[in-house]
Amino acid sequence: MHQTNAPAAPSGHRGVTPTIHLLPATPEAVHWGFFDPRLPPALTVMSGDLVAIEALTHHAGDAPDLLMDAGIRDVFERVGDRGPGVHILTGPIAVAGAQPGDVLQVDILEATPRLPYGSNLAAHWGYLYGEIPVERVTVYELDPSAMLGRAVFAYEWTATPLADQIGIVVAADPDRRERALPGVVVPLRPHFGTMGVAPAAPERVSSIPPGDHGGNIDNWRVGVGGRMYYPVQVAGALLSVGDPHVSQGDGEISGTALEASVNGLLRLTIRRDLAYRVPVLETAMELFVHGFGGTLDKAMKSATLRTLAILKDQFGLSRADAYSLMSVAVDFTVTQVVDQRQGVHARIDKRCFPKWQSS
Amino acid sequence: MHQTNAPAAPSGHRGVTPTIHLLPATPEAVHWGFFDPRLPPALTVMSGDLVAIEALTHHAGDAPDLLMDAGIRDVFERVGDRGPGVHILTGPIAVAGAQPGDVLQVDILEATPRLPYGSNLAAHWGYLYGEIPVERVTVYELDPSAMLGRAVFAYEWTATPLADQIGIVVAADPDRRERALPGVVVPLRPHFGTMGVAPAAPERVSSIPPGDHGGNIDNWRVGVGGRMYYPVQVAGALLSVGDPHVSQGDGEISGTALEASVNGLLRLTIRRDLAYRVPVLETAMELFVHGFGGTLDKAMKSATLRTLAILKDQFGLSRADAYSLMSVAVDFTVTQVVDQRQGVHARIDKRCFPKWQSS
Repeated sequence: MHQTNAPAAPSGHRGVTPTIHLLPATPEAVHWGFFDPRLPPALTVMSGDLVAIEALTHHAGDAPDLLMDAGIRDVFERVGDRGPGVHILTGPIAVAGAQPGDVLQVDILEATPRLPYGSNLAAHWGYLYGEIPVERVTVYELDPSAMLGRAVFAYEWTATPLADQIGIVVAADPDRRERALPGVVVPLRPHFGTMGVAPAAPERVSSIPPGDHGGNIDNWRVGVGGRMYYPVQVAGALLSVGDPHVSQGDGEISGTALEASVNGLLRLTIRRDLAYRVPVLETAMELFVHGFGGTLDKAMKSATLRTLAILKDQFGLSRADAYSLMSVAVDFTVTQVVDQRQGVHARIDKRCFPKWQSS
Repeated sequence: MHQTNAPAAPSGHRGVTPTIHLLPATPEAVHWGFFDPRLPPALTVMSGDLVAIEALTHHAGDAPDLLMDAGIRDVFERVGDRGPGVHILTGPIAVAGAQPGDVLQVDILEATPRLPYGSNLAAHWGYLYGEIPVERVTVYELDPSAMLGRAVFAYEWTATPLADQIGIVVAADPDRRERALPGVVVPLRPHFGTMGVAPAAPERVSSIPPGDHGGNIDNWRVGVGGRMYYPVQVAGALLSVGDPHVSQGDGEISGTALEASVNGLLRLTIRRDLAYRVPVLETAMELFVHGFGGTLDKAMKSATLRTLAILKDQFGLSRADAYSLMSVAVDFTVTQVVDQRQGVHARIDKRCFPKWQSS
């Protein structure tokens, strides 16, 4: 039986108090811009353990006076091996005993902004750059207790011809900071834009396109109350976490979210009772299936076929029954259109299954 | 000021008790498969009036023993002028004084299933017909008090080579009805799949592709608590209502929703204080902007540009500010991928605007 509402059922650690590990984002515990299964683990845990982890925004240099502290500055100064992607990733975390074919369950128990500011860049890779051909940083102040953000200033990007240098630090220039979004409030949705297990190929893979290892999925629901399932690709799973956001709309159309460093508390659990072969998110009320493609049309097709497969394999429906249910009850939403590989996710309402079906 | 939280402010009828009109779906009060500004009104109302309206599903013939009553049978028997679209539309309703340039506000106050059954067709125009090349009807029983539906049977479509005859009635054949979706429940979302004003061109226009007159938008949020804004195209606005659904997922991927006749109570109000030139939906918490295109990619581009324009024209934001806000706080969702012209809608969280901006 598929009993995801039950308390976490770790494969190891039965009857043993889980350990809480600390994984600060030191220069030694991050890798910048890539996944690589050959990386040595920054930490090894048992299934069921908790990890208090720091995730740093690679946009901290957009306003270093507000978005950096000593620890962040240390990473920017000392980690020179960057690319081909842009994201600072903390990890990898090995989970003892995880094997290809298993599913790594990651519960997000806490996600708290590290500093009270975040940055949004309207980038040259943004969805409307053709219509608004200017790169522009908007810095928001965060009120984590009210879970609201407000823009404090914006400036046009002129530090380089295009904002394409990974982790560049732009000297704060108060004279160029102009008022932005007066009176407007942004409800916060802290989450991890990029989280995933190491892909199987023994090589450095860009952190930008999302894939079946997870990675840069950019679904804002991967925050507190979310439980991600990643199909394990290599022994130990090798989870890495980064690209923290304090908010994002479905689409992420300017090319970035509201980017800010976030501290997380995660529980990592090996699952061997699930048929998921693609990244799936579960919340209290919903299950989300992630599809990807080079265009939105291809991502939509991917999401529909993956949902069909999960309703069949995990919930025991015939394909014809699953197709009808998907038309009358499953919601398809744009995840993002700016990460090279675009995303669409399907939302399955758990109320559709008063009893979880045998897998 | 944009005061959409205030009580409806009709352009006419100030201080006058509104009238409640009844518009049953008789053969004389429906048109089948098209919009046409040359149609004489089935009813004329004043701004601020209420209309108790019947909307009939064109899928009633899928299970006539369950989906038809005498009134529905009368329309199927007596209305022979059908096409090029498929939807039975009740109306048009003229609103005295409405002029091109105005916005017609339609509040959906009630939407109640007429009979306790609905039908979903996996059609040859469905999104996964290439993968599941079978047309199949699934009939659901409705529990309107619990707001839940459950499949009672399904059957493969064999009445015609393809399900392409508008309003065909399939004789009930208990022997061919097979069990479907055992144990699965569908939360109901009663709404009007097709509602809109008459397009400007003096001709018969198919009811299938949605457009700036509204029409077959197929957003399941156009139900109770929803307020639609349609840009008026011709004098009198000429609202028509049909294609009732009791549920649908974003995407409507099998080609149809959970189709069932629905009785509605609508309030029609002329608005002259709004900059909306495209169909917009407002709910208590949200504003939705509808974009359309021949592909999902084109519909997404349309939705982003329309949202940018509304944030500028209606909310007074600069384009650059609007673009940042859209990336960090606006959600883009697939409306449908099966209506010839596909749809993407943007969700603007009203909490972003603690004070509504001047238009």
